[in-house]
Amino acid sequence: MGLIVQKYGGSSVASVALMENHARRAMELREQGHQVVLVLSAMGDSTDRLNDLANSACPDPDPRELDALLATGEQVAVSVMAIVLRRLGCPARSYTGAQIGIRTESVPGKACITGVDTEVLSRDIDAGCIPVVAGFQGVDEQGNTTTIGRGGSDTTAVALAASLGADECQILTDVDGVYTTDPRMVPQARLLKHLTFEEMIELAGQGSRVLQNRAVEFASKYKVPLRVMSSFRPGSGTLISLQEADVEAPVVSGIAFNRDEAEITVTSIPDQPGMALQLLKPLSDARIDVDMIVLNAPRDGHVDISFTVHRQDHERAGELVRAAAKGMDGAAVRTEERVAKISVVGAGMRSHASVGATLLEALAEQGINLRILSTSEIRISVLVDEVRLEDGVRCLHDAFGLDQEPAARQG
Amino acid sequence: MGLIVQKYGGSSVASVALMENHARRAMELREQGHQVVLVLSAMGDSTDRLNDLANSACPDPDPRELDALLATGEQVAVSVMAIVLRRLGCPARSYTGAQIGIRTESVPGKACITGVDTEVLSRDIDAGCIPVVAGFQGVDEQGNTTTIGRGGSDTTAVALAASLGADECQILTDVDGVYTTDPRMVPQARLLKHLTFEEMIELAGQGSRVLQNRAVEFASKYKVPLRVMSSFRPGSGTLISLQEADVEAPVVSGIAFNRDEAEITVTSIPDQPGMALQLLKPLSDARIDVDMIVLNAPRDGHVDISFTVHRQDHERAGELVRAAAKGMDGAAVRTEERVAKISVVGAGMRSHASVGATLLEALAEQGINLRILSTSEIRISVLVDEVRLEDGVRCLHDAFGLDQEPAARQG
Repeated sequence: MGLIVQKYGGSSVASVALMENHARRAMELREQGHQVVLVLSAMGDSTDRLNDLANSACPDPDPRELDALLATGEQVAVSVMAIVLRRLGCPARSYTGAQIGIRTESVPGKACITGVDTEVLSRDIDAGCIPVVAGFQGVDEQGNTTTIGRGGSDTTAVALAASLGADECQILTDVDGVYTTDPRMVPQARLLKHLTFEEMIELAGQGSRVLQNRAVEFASKYKVPLRVMSSFRPGSGTLISLQEADVEAPVVSGIAFNRDEAEITVTSIPDQPGMALQLLKPLSDARIDVDMIVLNAPRDGHVDISFTVHRQDHERAGELVRAAAKGMDGAAVRTEERVAKISVVGAGMRSHASVGATLLEALAEQGINLRILSTSEIRISVLVDEVRLEDGVRCLHDAFGLDQEPAARQG
Repeated sequence: MGLIVQKYGGSSVASVALMENHARRAMELREQGHQVVLVLSAMGDSTDRLNDLANSACPDPDPRELDALLATGEQVAVSVMAIVLRRLGCPARSYTGAQIGIRTESVPGKACITGVDTEVLSRDIDAGCIPVVAGFQGVDEQGNTTTIGRGGSDTTAVALAASLGADECQILTDVDGVYTTDPRMVPQARLLKHLTFEEMIELAGQGSRVLQNRAVEFASKYKVPLRVMSSFRPGSGTLISLQEADVEAPVVSGIAFNRDEAEITVTSIPDQPGMALQLLKPLSDARIDVDMIVLNAPRDGHVDISFTVHRQDHERAGELVRAAAKGMDGAAVRTEERVAKISVVGAGMRSHASVGATLLEALAEQGINLRILSTSEIRISVLVDEVRLEDGVRCLHDAFGLDQEPAARQG
């Protein structure tokens, strides 16, 4: 017996028929003795339609009013779900963010949750009633409706789970869980039964868009076990928790990748303080996100610097960097539009040396040229030509034995 | 300079383009020095669509949840309108019923407004901002969203106007105002410049569905001048206020009619106490509304009773009355499905005698048989065969000179 918060995304609640399936699932948990709280996103594409309506009223709609408008999408979903649950004989009540007391900052469109009142929720739960809470929204101190950013229903669910001390927060979605890599690219990809929060954050940040990173960070901070599972098929999905990988845990858990990168390299920069800043500051001023940055050791009084930007920013970033490099005697700028990033992630990655060696060897065997390499605590990322992305992911998935259960792997 | 509450119905806010017209109209008032509050219904047919969604989830949806669902329709409308106003450079803020403090009873679907907080509204108005308030909804003491019944946005507007002490409450709709009778039936029908609350209540109750009766009663009680006008065309519409008809005021202001009536007559009922009750009680128990009731003086120890019901209740009402009449020695039941009611209404109708005489003479001239006649303080209603309805309305409109301006009329 425990308290479980279940969150369903937009495609999972696109119709009354789908909602009925989820209602029965929640009722089964309840019959098994669990207490259940539901958090829903807006039905299907209704958020897109509300956004279109706002944009037809103004290309740049007032943020407070846009929040008030968008919040109605989730309100529709929760009242319909409560109607369905009650028809099936299960006590249920729908709540807006304001009604349940999801308090946020006064930052329309991307407000952070500052607190959650648990009085109403606890009263319902204790009475055997299923509260159905609108995700993605809250209320600020002045009583304005706020939204916590697109896809923020994951964060709502984690915040409720944390406030209630729930035993598990289940994110029910259109995938079975988190895989060793994207199964559409590598058919041998395997569903991961367990990940640490750290691994999930690295995998999500590197392009595995299963969960909102903010939600994972929130769950990590408040130690809420998260489970990603399918809302359509049976299965226990992927549990993401604090629990460290055990002794037999694999060095590498999964491989993430990101196609939409572009590389900018500046060579022969005079080795003087502030040169990197001169190159990167204009990008920051233009709000262009810079992802990987590699700066090698100086040679003959000169350094080279490489970094990546989102492909859509490639052209503008190139212009800004060329302008900045003009004053640097001898410096040359080179851009490469079509590159991709591959990251191997694993909480068990105690030393980068052996992982790095396996990685370099596998890529070399395939003749894949490595443009940039950088590391973080539990991750090694490499940049390759986009045309070699699939080959790279497949050979690394193979090299780290990710198609096999951890216990069956060598080394 | 004054404070004006403007209410727009669903068909008037069916598109962003229409909303922009209304926004400009409100801004013009503001530029003329007026203070403006807007109250909106849901856009176009969105309430119908939300109702359909609820019914697809359950044929008999939970009332609390249905209210929460339906209330989103108006919330969408007000935030879109606020977005439009702000784009046009006018400060504006949207509010749900709960946000603005429209407090109601805990009766889902037909809650009565128990009070309105004016703090937020007054702050906005004083700051030159136009508050845009969701009609049709409120909040009960437990924080549940309630609705005040279909078409209840009129009532919301009047309640806000009353609480704020507004100078006028304007109901902007798809008609130019209140006419002497339905212009589709009588092309000579004339727009009425002024009516008393009493006249409007009698006209509305008799089938002129321009305003919700509850809203008119509310306005009457709190002495809020109401103006019905077109949201599409210019013109000052019809002002409905306390002001009594002046000396030159016409005896008859307008003619209302209602097609959907059916008549039930019971003849030769023994003249004993409680007989009428025995006949009518079963209808009341079956929640069948009885409209006109005529009971004549006894003759030879027997009375006749006639009354009307809505045509859709005709069959069931007939069965109930027949069953009740069985025990009454000699009583006979006769029903007539296709009858219609015509009512002449006028606050100046000091004595019914002269109006009655004119009415009877006009109908007799046309050979229209009068089935029932009944009177109220400022109204005389007659029941005629449905096929003669149009002739009846036309000849009465003519007989009371309603096609002419009051001052030009004879007598």
